[in-house]
Amino acid sequence: MALIVQKYGGTSVGSVERIQLVSDRIILTKQQGHQVVVAVSAMAGETNRLLNLAHQINEVPEPRELDMLLSAGEQVSIALLAISLNQKGIKAISLTADQAGIKTNDVFNDATIEHIETSKLTEWLDKGYVVIVAGFQGRDSVGNITTLGRGGSDTTAVALAAALKADECQIFTDVDGVYSSDPRYVSNTRKLKEVSFSDMHALAKSGAKVLQEHSVSHAWRSSVSLRVLSSFDNGEGTLICEKPNDYFPVTGLALKQDLYLAECTDINEEDRILLAKEYRVLTNTDDCFQIVVQKATFLQLKLVFNTKIRNISSLSILTLVGDNVEGMADSACNQLMVNSVDIYQCYTEPKSVSVIVIQADLQQAAEILHKTFVITEQSQDNNVLIAVS
Amino acid sequence: MALIVQKYGGTSVGSVERIQLVSDRIILTKQQGHQVVVAVSAMAGETNRLLNLAHQINEVPEPRELDMLLSAGEQVSIALLAISLNQKGIKAISLTADQAGIKTNDVFNDATIEHIETSKLTEWLDKGYVVIVAGFQGRDSVGNITTLGRGGSDTTAVALAAALKADECQIFTDVDGVYSSDPRYVSNTRKLKEVSFSDMHALAKSGAKVLQEHSVSHAWRSSVSLRVLSSFDNGEGTLICEKPNDYFPVTGLALKQDLYLAECTDINEEDRILLAKEYRVLTNTDDCFQIVVQKATFLQLKLVFNTKIRNISSLSILTLVGDNVEGMADSACNQLMVNSVDIYQCYTEPKSVSVIVIQADLQQAAEILHKTFVITEQSQDNNVLIAVS
Repeated sequence: MALIVQKYGGTSVGSVERIQLVSDRIILTKQQGHQVVVAVSAMAGETNRLLNLAHQINEVPEPRELDMLLSAGEQVSIALLAISLNQKGIKAISLTADQAGIKTNDVFNDATIEHIETSKLTEWLDKGYVVIVAGFQGRDSVGNITTLGRGGSDTTAVALAAALKADECQIFTDVDGVYSSDPRYVSNTRKLKEVSFSDMHALAKSGAKVLQEHSVSHAWRSSVSLRVLSSFDNGEGTLICEKPNDYFPVTGLALKQDLYLAECTDINEEDRILLAKEYRVLTNTDDCFQIVVQKATFLQLKLVFNTKIRNISSLSILTLVGDNVEGMADSACNQLMVNSVDIYQCYTEPKSVSVIVIQADLQQAAEILHKTFVITEQSQDNNVLIAVS
Repeated sequence: MALIVQKYGGTSVGSVERIQLVSDRIILTKQQGHQVVVAVSAMAGETNRLLNLAHQINEVPEPRELDMLLSAGEQVSIALLAISLNQKGIKAISLTADQAGIKTNDVFNDATIEHIETSKLTEWLDKGYVVIVAGFQGRDSVGNITTLGRGGSDTTAVALAAALKADECQIFTDVDGVYSSDPRYVSNTRKLKEVSFSDMHALAKSGAKVLQEHSVSHAWRSSVSLRVLSSFDNGEGTLICEKPNDYFPVTGLALKQDLYLAECTDINEEDRILLAKEYRVLTNTDDCFQIVVQKATFLQLKLVFNTKIRNISSLSILTLVGDNVEGMADSACNQLMVNSVDIYQCYTEPKSVSVIVIQADLQQAAEILHKTFVITEQSQDNNVLIAVS
């Protein structure tokens, strides 16, 4: 008997029918003899519906009250999931984050879990219940409801797994695992059976959306094995762990889109230093100061710097992740240049090489890098061998 | 400076626009120098939406999980109301029933408030905050969320007023006070300025929907002055108190509709006794056993007795309420009979006379009784005098 923590996102519980399918998936695990704790997001669309109500009243609602509002979303989904499991004859109990003992700091809208008081959880598990916990939320030390920021249900699941010393934390999503790149932009991608924490962290940080960066680092720190699975089929998914059995010289190519090349004019030296500290600088001369920022960040900076900042063009960053990719920087740039892709910048970090290109070149650049470095003929053979073994 | 508890129902907070109107009403009270605690229901339609989701999964959802589900409704409305008050520059804080210290017994779906731990509430009031509390819900001794049953927000408001020793508990609703009868069925009704607890209790028990029977008895027991007001205008409404200044020989005529005349056949003596104990019996002979039950009760009984129980016809009960109405029973029956209204039964209780008629006769019977006993020419003069004084 293992202790499994499962996390189901908003799409997985987006309707009564899907909640019933999720119940079946939970029952499958339960019938394998495991104890199951489930972290659940709000039903798809619900968080946006609630946000929209708040924004009709105030564009910037009081953060404490926004957390009170949004946390109602998960309360609905955990109750419906418990009702569904009960209806199928399985003992299940839903717990708000407060009831589940999830204590956070007091940073409303972006709280951090500080501690989970697990006694109630283990009590219900020992009685044979499936324990369903509201994701994305917690309580601060004086009893206010807090939220962990969007997508925080992954964090809830990992924190529960760490606190309960679970054998595995399974993240159910709408894809069936982690791929070597985003199949919407790159052909011939490979599904990874196992990935190391460090590679997954680098991929998530560089734009892979399947897992949140924070939840990966939390799992890594706490040595919680993570598994990414599809809510809609029964595959093995992808295991993220300390020492994967699967190995490729280059693990994957992450894509980060919708970045702005922002040009600042007439800003003082102090601001330049501040911006350079926070964001990637492309050009820094007396006449020209250019940085790369997320679209949302650009809009915030616009509020501060007004006409002193403008968007020159849309950029993308492509990042190769793997054990020894740092040495591939020159080769990667060459491959792109011979194919007429302009490179705005190339930089390396431990276990990654990144290239900044104009958004319009993203797809072409991604195909080239993926074909040349990730799924080479050699690695394909390797893959076949592993698939057969 | 007084301490006022206000309660706003689902219709009053049914949209963002209405929530903003409610905010203005609260601010008005705040600006008169009062401390304000507000109990709020879920937005109109929300409880039904959530119930419907649950019923799609299970016709009889697990009671604990149903309370977890439904209590999310008020969490949304209290947060939005706090956001609205904050936006208008008023300090306000929303509290779930748990945060507000509302302790109930553990009867899910129909819990009773046992105690309110007021320290948190007074703390916020002393800091100048409007305190917004989720109506209809509480926590049991082991931390489960409970609900008080539908319409329970009135009970929350009265319990808060009693615990805080508030000067007045104001129930905001979609009518502007308590009337001598239901204006949808009876012409020439009178708005009551003040009503005694005992009369209001008899009216509520006999079908007047403006206040819940339980909340009236709770207020009576705790000597909390209740005022029924309209959310949509600024009238004085109706005050329910120990010793009203307003006085009429007959206070009002309550109407209770959609009752079934249920006929039972072939049931044993034991069941007869049980049913007779619980419900009003119309006929009890060897051949025929007839009782009067609510439609919902009939459906439950049908599950137990199957073909042994059937609905013969739909009935209504009309109840005259006032200090010395018991002596009017004969006269009331006579008035109806000379107007060809069949009487199924007539019975008296302290301060009330009730007549059971067939549903089709309700409106005619109501007009006759109201005109003859409630708004007589004499009492109309009386009313004018009071209105002028």
